[in-house]
Amino acid sequence: MVHVITSAANPLIKRMKSLHTKKGRSETGLFLAEGARLALEAAELNFWPETLLYAPAALARPQMRSLLEQTAARGVRTVETSESILAQVSKRDNPQTVIGAYRQLITPLENVDGDMIVALEGVRDPGNFGTIMRTADSVGAAGVVLVGETCDPFSVEAVRATMGSIFAVKIARASFEQLTAFAKARGAALIGASLKGAVFDADQPAPKRAIVLMGNEQSGLSAAQENACDLLVKLPMRGRADSLNLGVATGIMLYDLWRRRGYDGAHA
Amino acid sequence: MVHVITSAANPLIKRMKSLHTKKGRSETGLFLAEGARLALEAAELNFWPETLLYAPAALARPQMRSLLEQTAARGVRTVETSESILAQVSKRDNPQTVIGAYRQLITPLENVDGDMIVALEGVRDPGNFGTIMRTADSVGAAGVVLVGETCDPFSVEAVRATMGSIFAVKIARASFEQLTAFAKARGAALIGASLKGAVFDADQPAPKRAIVLMGNEQSGLSAAQENACDLLVKLPMRGRADSLNLGVATGIMLYDLWRRRGYDGAHA
Repeated sequence: MVHVITSAANPLIKRMKSLHTKKGRSETGLFLAEGARLALEAAELNFWPETLLYAPAALARPQMRSLLEQTAARGVRTVETSESILAQVSKRDNPQTVIGAYRQLITPLENVDGDMIVALEGVRDPGNFGTIMRTADSVGAAGVVLVGETCDPFSVEAVRATMGSIFAVKIARASFEQLTAFAKARGAALIGASLKGAVFDADQPAPKRAIVLMGNEQSGLSAAQENACDLLVKLPMRGRADSLNLGVATGIMLYDLWRRRGYDGAHA
Repeated sequence: MVHVITSAANPLIKRMKSLHTKKGRSETGLFLAEGARLALEAAELNFWPETLLYAPAALARPQMRSLLEQTAARGVRTVETSESILAQVSKRDNPQTVIGAYRQLITPLENVDGDMIVALEGVRDPGNFGTIMRTADSVGAAGVVLVGETCDPFSVEAVRATMGSIFAVKIARASFEQLTAFAKARGAALIGASLKGAVFDADQPAPKRAIVLMGNEQSGLSAAQENACDLLVKLPMRGRADSLNLGVATGIMLYDLWRRRGYDGAHA
């Protein structure tokens, strides 16, 4: 079941390359994930690619040989190709030896369940989104909810920034109204980050269930959205900067919340 | 004293464009800072450009008119040009209406003084460096010390990510030995972030003076560097991710330290 492709003009290779564009991703419902480590982690979580490209060098790792046997057995298009074609597919000079095309998965909001959830209103920067996925994974958040118009969570840049957490953290989409209804139904406190909020007293316990809501990079949350929050938290500031990077601010919010819960569930 | 340049072949414009390259920055000792807001903030901190380019549209803001008068009076090469030339200088389709070339400033380590300092060992990604400058500014850190081989702190990408904090936070360079000697001389605790450390008990007060030391994106701190730290702190982790983005991890470390000091000095 393993094919060998040596031509960049092959339709399959062209299709893989098209996943760098929003159009290509929309038409196929796929996204690119690069690297042997990512493919192995995805398989552990039972995510299997639709197509898996690899260079012969990948076979040096016994784990990869075993993975390739599994993908071939599962009917995954498993294709051996050259590093130069992998470079073209990844648009990188030094490509990874393995690149997979995976099916985009958006989880229905009602299936995102946990005591900590992240909601991003209008996030624009794929690097910020990806970094936030990685942080959400690190604190064991149940999912990241994209609210309103956002960047594409499956762009190559976004997926790269997740460092593998794209497979570990659920992504949902919702309107702001759906989000507030969801919070109410679950009894979760909606905690918005805003300069108009107050510094969250360091000794106060965290709500039992919380959704941390972050506004967009340029404009933050709207007044109506702020009003809908159960708690508006301002991160203290001392210098001349008037705001933090969105990914950094989200990380500080999430870790501070988790601290108030005694870092429950942390790995030893 | 205001000149008008309309040709992209003008040597001054070429020189500005060269600041996108390490070579151009090294040869001139300058770096590019984009945007009217940045130019105004820099002036407030008494940083004046060597050359300031602007498009006529910038004159719509009274503050900018006043700034341009000041720069011209100070002998700054103040040059009116077209938006298309600004687009070429910034390599952006929608350029800012003001772009300045400023002198790179590295502060001697002994002149970095304060109760919180950030040290970055081998930081590679200019976006991470810039984001960390912005966070350092937000917590009122005295400076960011670049240890060993690092990315260029004055690249366009780094400066953009600082969001103006490039002018507000001191940058120093040091070898690891210089850093430890400096910490000892100042009585500052060297707090390293490492997976080999222990979670910092949330109730423990912060050392009076602290230098937060972050390792490089790929490899973290070396064993020898870890041994030289007064405290090794591990950020707790719960999910599948095994590390955080460097900018995020630094933000969490700095805010956690500042919390232990009751967010002293925070703006109301």
